[in-house]
Amino acid sequence: MDAVQIVEVGPRDGLQNEAGFVETADKLALIDRLVAMGATRIEVASFVNPRRVPQMADAEAIVAALPAAPGVRFIGLCLNERGVDRAIASRDGGGRALDEAGCVLVASDGFGIANQGQTVADGITVNTAMLEKARGAGLFAQVTISAAFGCPYDGPVPAARVIDLARRMADAGAQEIALADTIGVAVPAQVGDLVGAVIAAVGPVPVRLHLHDTRGMAPGNAWAAYQAGCRTFDAALGGLGGCPFAPGAAGNVGTEDLVYLFERSGVRTGITLDAALAANHWFAGIMGRPLPSRVGEAGDFAAVTP
Amino acid sequence: MDAVQIVEVGPRDGLQNEAGFVETADKLALIDRLVAMGATRIEVASFVNPRRVPQMADAEAIVAALPAAPGVRFIGLCLNERGVDRAIASRDGGGRALDEAGCVLVASDGFGIANQGQTVADGITVNTAMLEKARGAGLFAQVTISAAFGCPYDGPVPAARVIDLARRMADAGAQEIALADTIGVAVPAQVGDLVGAVIAAVGPVPVRLHLHDTRGMAPGNAWAAYQAGCRTFDAALGGLGGCPFAPGAAGNVGTEDLVYLFERSGVRTGITLDAALAANHWFAGIMGRPLPSRVGEAGDFAAVTP
Repeated sequence: MDAVQIVEVGPRDGLQNEAGFVETADKLALIDRLVAMGATRIEVASFVNPRRVPQMADAEAIVAALPAAPGVRFIGLCLNERGVDRAIASRDGGGRALDEAGCVLVASDGFGIANQGQTVADGITVNTAMLEKARGAGLFAQVTISAAFGCPYDGPVPAARVIDLARRMADAGAQEIALADTIGVAVPAQVGDLVGAVIAAVGPVPVRLHLHDTRGMAPGNAWAAYQAGCRTFDAALGGLGGCPFAPGAAGNVGTEDLVYLFERSGVRTGITLDAALAANHWFAGIMGRPLPSRVGEAGDFAAVTP
Repeated sequence: MDAVQIVEVGPRDGLQNEAGFVETADKLALIDRLVAMGATRIEVASFVNPRRVPQMADAEAIVAALPAAPGVRFIGLCLNERGVDRAIASRDGGGRALDEAGCVLVASDGFGIANQGQTVADGITVNTAMLEKARGAGLFAQVTISAAFGCPYDGPVPAARVIDLARRMADAGAQEIALADTIGVAVPAQVGDLVGAVIAAVGPVPVRLHLHDTRGMAPGNAWAAYQAGCRTFDAALGGLGGCPFAPGAAGNVGTEDLVYLFERSGVRTGITLDAALAANHWFAGIMGRPLPSRVGEAGDFAAVTP
């Protein structure tokens, strides 16, 4: 069985919807812990308007203080060219520096306008320029097609549109393309079909999957995507997350949940469940509450003495 | 796409672990509501020792008051011959009468002894007699192989043992055989493999799947089983449940969750999500708390106005 790579988005997508500001030192401690846990790609910050997303106002401070971590790639999220400029400039902060710019193309006008003030047509133009700029500056330039399985405002999103957007982003030079179930509405049959179609459309550009577990379908969706050929998955430690501009969106699929799913299926993730559970319990202490991940709550399958 | 049948186990498996006694009238109101929702098979009672499971002490009273419901089949759970005798005798109570006896063969010694004081070997003998007695009395005689994907005490359960037990139960005259993930440890690859193997081993006897959603894997497991040929699934309204003799067991997979999974995949269930959500909200009022089903909590995928 081919191994998978889990991209840890806890420090960015996991925290961006938290009402109380998570201290920069706590975010950096989380990043250290994720590195120690075995994560090899970590989304650490978002270069967005701090008035819109105050939780991410310390993006430059985070990047400036990133740990030396050989073999680990750090990702900064960018929603527009200004964001890419900031991601590039952040490398002068003295820290370990970012490796990747994560761009975002929303697949529906409704969510595109709510999330980043862009129609789909505008998003194509803007992301094309962002990808070129990021690559030109030596960043690995990847893009996530958001609301790819359904939009909180427009409802269903046609698969043909998502396939077309993916092809356009591949043509624009994207080095990886992710499909995001931003509001957690997808089911496995839909995910397997769309992921398979996008892989066929953009190969050899690799395809990643970003799932939220709003309705409990995320592990099944991940497994359907694996069967369709997807080998890279976003997840957040503890299943933290939510989106301030997507009504009803709940947390990301938990890293623990994907590690349980894949490792028990004979698919290596590079992360042990014990390490993920220990990190969950440690970060729950920082947050002052249990984290929502299902496997984080239930624990591993371990026999007890009667 | 072939339709599926959802067997509603809320009144029995959903409630047996409740600390406070749920009044007989409330259980009967739930059964009425499930019939109205479109359930065509409902597990209504368990003929077990009331000192061991006080919540099920009103089994005979429930059966005596079952509603007239053409096309609906009512199931009573039986853990031993005494239970089958009580299920048969309950038909003299004046009500609508049971249609099915649900027997239980545990696939591991550890859980078998904890749950019903039986080793696997004893369970084969006892269930063979139970199935014969139930069929002889005109009840549809089905059996669930419990802890089929893992035991809370013994750990992993060999697939070959489960296949062998299923074959023995088919030879003993079982009219349907269910596989139960009693403690919610299975993953989709395991479920697809074992369900497919059991279907091949016992055909033409139909195979049913009973899932608990302890670790968030249940919807994905249900989908894997569907792909392997399973067409009948247990579920409990609201995802209620748990087992007093299975440490760590959480609720059954929610009826709402399976309806969402299947209906959005183009597989008919005979139940609309709206009806299931309405029943969830009604019963949450009876129970005085929200029910754990994920789709019950999040609701359907419905676009909102920005």
